[in-house]
Amino acid sequence: MALYVHKYGGTSVGSIERIEGVAQKIKHFKEDGHDVVVAVSAMSGETNRLIGLAKEITDTPSAREMDVLVSTGEQVTIALLSMALEKIGVPAKSYTGSQIRMLTDSAFGKARIEHIDTDSIRSDLDEGKVVVVAGFQGVDAQGNITTLGRGGSDTTGVALAAALKADECQIYTDVDGVYTTDPRVVEKARRMEKITFEEMLEMASLGSKVLQIRSVEFAGKYQVPLRVLHSSKEGNGTLITIEDDNAVEKPVISGIAFNRDEAKLTVMGVPDIPGVASKILGPVGAANIEVDMIVQNVAADRTTDFTFTVHRNDFAKAQGVLNEVAQELGAREVAATDDIAKVSLVGVGMRSHAGVASKMFEILANENINIQIISTSEIKISVVIEEKYLELAVRALHTGFDLDDEK
Amino acid sequence: MALYVHKYGGTSVGSIERIEGVAQKIKHFKEDGHDVVVAVSAMSGETNRLIGLAKEITDTPSAREMDVLVSTGEQVTIALLSMALEKIGVPAKSYTGSQIRMLTDSAFGKARIEHIDTDSIRSDLDEGKVVVVAGFQGVDAQGNITTLGRGGSDTTGVALAAALKADECQIYTDVDGVYTTDPRVVEKARRMEKITFEEMLEMASLGSKVLQIRSVEFAGKYQVPLRVLHSSKEGNGTLITIEDDNAVEKPVISGIAFNRDEAKLTVMGVPDIPGVASKILGPVGAANIEVDMIVQNVAADRTTDFTFTVHRNDFAKAQGVLNEVAQELGAREVAATDDIAKVSLVGVGMRSHAGVASKMFEILANENINIQIISTSEIKISVVIEEKYLELAVRALHTGFDLDDEK
Repeated sequence: MALYVHKYGGTSVGSIERIEGVAQKIKHFKEDGHDVVVAVSAMSGETNRLIGLAKEITDTPSAREMDVLVSTGEQVTIALLSMALEKIGVPAKSYTGSQIRMLTDSAFGKARIEHIDTDSIRSDLDEGKVVVVAGFQGVDAQGNITTLGRGGSDTTGVALAAALKADECQIYTDVDGVYTTDPRVVEKARRMEKITFEEMLEMASLGSKVLQIRSVEFAGKYQVPLRVLHSSKEGNGTLITIEDDNAVEKPVISGIAFNRDEAKLTVMGVPDIPGVASKILGPVGAANIEVDMIVQNVAADRTTDFTFTVHRNDFAKAQGVLNEVAQELGAREVAATDDIAKVSLVGVGMRSHAGVASKMFEILANENINIQIISTSEIKISVVIEEKYLELAVRALHTGFDLDDEK
Repeated sequence: MALYVHKYGGTSVGSIERIEGVAQKIKHFKEDGHDVVVAVSAMSGETNRLIGLAKEITDTPSAREMDVLVSTGEQVTIALLSMALEKIGVPAKSYTGSQIRMLTDSAFGKARIEHIDTDSIRSDLDEGKVVVVAGFQGVDAQGNITTLGRGGSDTTGVALAAALKADECQIYTDVDGVYTTDPRVVEKARRMEKITFEEMLEMASLGSKVLQIRSVEFAGKYQVPLRVLHSSKEGNGTLITIEDDNAVEKPVISGIAFNRDEAKLTVMGVPDIPGVASKILGPVGAANIEVDMIVQNVAADRTTDFTFTVHRNDFAKAQGVLNEVAQELGAREVAATDDIAKVSLVGVGMRSHAGVASKMFEILANENINIQIISTSEIKISVVIEEKYLELAVRALHTGFDLDDEK
């Protein structure tokens, strides 16, 4: 007998029919003798409907009231799912974030979980009940309703699993697992049976939007085995867990992530003197623009080219900031384009295998794809290329690193 | 400076536009230097939408989960109204029933308020804030969400006014006050400036559906002055308050209530022996049928006719029960009809004025309206007549007792 925490997202509970399907799934676990605690999101569309109501009033609603408003979405789902469970003979009890004492700080809209009381959950489980908890929401020490931010229901699931020391936290979604890359781009993309927390973090932050990053960090920190599964299809999904040191052979590369969300800016011909990087990035940071990759080329003529990437949403703003800075620094010019894409190889196996980078560059060169920026971390190599080559690059790398599904 | 509790029903907060109108109304009170605590209902249609979702799952949802579900309706409104207030520069803070500690018993769906913590409300008011409370909902001692039953937001408003010793509880509705009778039936019906709690109770229970009966009882018990007002029109509405003993002249009749909700059943020719009434009504009560009026005619031939009225919804059920009982008692027959209406004169003035009943009967006789049943209480006289005469009877009585608006 195991204790599972299930998390069902908005699409999985998007209609009464689906809620009843979820209830059936949970019933199977109970019939197999397991205990189940469930975290649920709002029915799909509901959160946006509520936000829409607030927007009709003001673009700058109080963050506290916003949380009071949107937290009703999950509250509706917990009641409906509990009813659906009881209807098919599974005793259930619902809890709002406040009722379960999902204690958070007071950062409305992006609160962080500080503590979960598990006493009432334990006693409900002892009575044979399924415990249904509203995801995404908590309560601060003063009793104010808080929310964890978009996608926070994943975090609720993982936090419950950690607090209860559950055997597994199962995240039910509309995909049947984590793939080696986006199957829409590479037909032969393969579902991974297993991936490490670190790899998943790199995959998630690079655009595989299966799980909220924070929930993966959380799961890694508390070593909660996390499984991504399809909410209506059968299958094992993908298990996200700690690295298995005993594995005889690890694949060098686990997956390929990519995104089109970035834009590239280069300040050309800046004096190559100490402190110039901070003089450029200081004002960018002050304007609340987050910078992803940073590269500074070695200079020959006592000037240098300084390049970085930002999210496309910040592209225009960053250009404005940079034009000013360039003038102050006496730089030659600012070159900027959002016609780029980032492709990243991810894999813990990379640590012990030399030559991954050179193989990557070789594969891209064979396709005549020019690399604009390179950036590496312990388990990741990222390159920026011209956007039009993105699909070609991903497919070539997927094949080149033996990731293709040979079925 | 006074402390007002406002209550706005579902229609008054039925759209963002109306919520913004409510915010403006509250702002005027603040500008006049008053403190305001507001109880609000769910936006019109929302509670039914939520109940509809539950019905899609089961006809017998758990009462606890039903309360978790429907209480979200008011939670949405408190957030939106607080946002609307803050937008126009009025500091506001929302509270769910749980947050304000509207402590109730655990009778889900029809909970009774036991206690209200007023500390946080007081301190918010001291800070110049408008306090916005979710109507209709509370929390039991175990932290479960409860609801007070349909129309319970009125009760929330009155309970807050009582706990805070507010100067007045103002119930904003879609009517501009309590009328001497239904203006749709009698064109010359007059808005009453003032009515006593007792009269209002008789009016409400007899079909003037302006206020929930429980809220009037509650207001009477704690002597909270209650005012019914239109939420978008100007006007004084109707003040419901304790009897003013100093009033030089009280009207004999305050208003005329009526309803078409009842059906009449008569067991004819029952042996006129002690205990027969309970032998008839016992099984009716056992079948969970509520009885309104009861009349037993004096008998000449050692048998008697026993008549009572029930709600039309229970008519068929009551007939079934009665047919069995009649057989057992050896009664002659059961006569039953729902072709009736009840008309009631209400007025505290009735206590000290003889002849109200005879005047009533005379007016009806002049119109050739036959009276089937008569029943009286200290401040009410009710008659049952054939349904088709209802409008005629009400108009004639309204004129006869000088209630017509002479404008």
